[in-house]
Amino acid sequence: MSSKGTVAVVGIGRMGANIARRLREIGYDVTAVYDVESGVAQVVAAELGASAAQTLSGVTASADTILTVVSDDAAMLAIFSETGDSLLDGANGKLFVNCATLSPGIHVEVERRAEARGASSLEACMASSIPQARAGTLYLMAGGRPETYERALPMLEGMSTALRYIGPAGSAAQVKALVNMVMNSNTAALAEGLGLGDALGLDLGMLREVFAQTGANSRVLETDGADMQAREHDVYFSAAHAAKDSGIALELAREHGLELPVAAATKAQYDRMIALGLGELDKSGVAELTFPGRATSRL
Amino acid sequence: MSSKGTVAVVGIGRMGANIARRLREIGYDVTAVYDVESGVAQVVAAELGASAAQTLSGVTASADTILTVVSDDAAMLAIFSETGDSLLDGANGKLFVNCATLSPGIHVEVERRAEARGASSLEACMASSIPQARAGTLYLMAGGRPETYERALPMLEGMSTALRYIGPAGSAAQVKALVNMVMNSNTAALAEGLGLGDALGLDLGMLREVFAQTGANSRVLETDGADMQAREHDVYFSAAHAAKDSGIALELAREHGLELPVAAATKAQYDRMIALGLGELDKSGVAELTFPGRATSRL
Repeated sequence: MSSKGTVAVVGIGRMGANIARRLREIGYDVTAVYDVESGVAQVVAAELGASAAQTLSGVTASADTILTVVSDDAAMLAIFSETGDSLLDGANGKLFVNCATLSPGIHVEVERRAEARGASSLEACMASSIPQARAGTLYLMAGGRPETYERALPMLEGMSTALRYIGPAGSAAQVKALVNMVMNSNTAALAEGLGLGDALGLDLGMLREVFAQTGANSRVLETDGADMQAREHDVYFSAAHAAKDSGIALELAREHGLELPVAAATKAQYDRMIALGLGELDKSGVAELTFPGRATSRL
Repeated sequence: MSSKGTVAVVGIGRMGANIARRLREIGYDVTAVYDVESGVAQVVAAELGASAAQTLSGVTASADTILTVVSDDAAMLAIFSETGDSLLDGANGKLFVNCATLSPGIHVEVERRAEARGASSLEACMASSIPQARAGTLYLMAGGRPETYERALPMLEGMSTALRYIGPAGSAAQVKALVNMVMNSNTAALAEGLGLGDALGLDLGMLREVFAQTGANSRVLETDGADMQAREHDVYFSAAHAAKDSGIALELAREHGLELPVAAATKAQYDRMIALGLGELDKSGVAELTFPGRATSRL
């Protein structure tokens, strides 16, 4: 199979590694991987037949497209630093595809820095998780210039079965912040309904069935309802992450003069989980705060 | 067609009248109707070939089963008064089927009063609206003694295509309060997501599509999302009703020592609608509080 193109991956956590595996599988030449934890990068590099790059400029030199999946805003600004070792070195003509969930303004700034060096930058915001990354079935929302989106499209279509162009850089991050803000509120509300049902001595299996058949139905009822009942909070999307994303959305609201009291009450619940040492539970763990006797029994 | 039995209906609002139409259509002999607004009762009585009863004792005398659909707790206690004109007069052997949404304790009290007179009482709590009442496709949750449920079952099956026995008297009202509490919170959360999306200049049709495909999806997104965007708040389930039902649930929580901050923040939003004179909008009208510039423009 002839190569579909060269790609390097920065940030080899579980998402980054699985995207790299997928791209290699469908015919991309994965030239280099890079991670601040160089041991992790070496293991994945060996598996994929890529080099474990020692410098960011080396990553950029190795491929036409550089895909980034870092953990937060600060890490993103660091790899696109305007001084020192940076992905921007020798970036003329390169395409950056940025998959981390970041504050919207960071995508605008990275696009500005990339274009100043003659490169292109696209945000490709993911609303799904590890298995979808490996299978190439991510839900992806893109933000950036239309022509940059067109350039990235063949690769994005290899990563995603649900791809959507949202608008300019940062707009996909805005949409994801809104999705997660509403999801978090629905989750906290569901935990309250089930917790009160438990206090009333109702059969919670029955109650979840009634919720599913009525106006109380929601996606989080499907994904988190049984886990709340069973206290199974293995992390899929952590409470700390929920607090962060609701916080990004509330900051956007503040900037626009909007008050969102339900989102604020929800964020306070996730902040309370963090304060109680429960921040690394799954977001379904908010039920530990609303079921009678639970929060104290866990501590 | 031979009669399936005699039934009288107390409370001839749109729900009560449509249940009466349905029961007549499927072979029940609707003997009498009663309403505090006697003019309304006379019109429906004439349509159905029933009598417009002048007294509550006359209602009870007219039928084996008396179906009640009144507006609130006080009206329910009034028609089951232990003094003066009352459905309890001559109630020995009668079956009361009570469809209003009430505080759970009221159903317990009505059952007690009915049984003291040798009658049976069942709560039949509705989680759907006018068209379903007319078509016999209500979502019905029953609370009361199992033998009373069995006795009422043929009639309930004529009213409902989704019938569920919950438990003792009052338990169906508890479940409905929980359904509506969660539904109201999801509604207020959705209004915040769409309102912030509007402030950010996002395409709200696109945003609703993304919500529908992700963890933000919910039944209220389907029923209320487009209405929030279009400001179409013709009442189906009023903001005042939402405040009342969330209030019932929060009172149950208080009695059990639970704090439910998201439900409390939601109730405060619906209370704010009432204070702004918006209580008779549909619950989707909570978007008037969260979209930039709306609440003030409406006043």
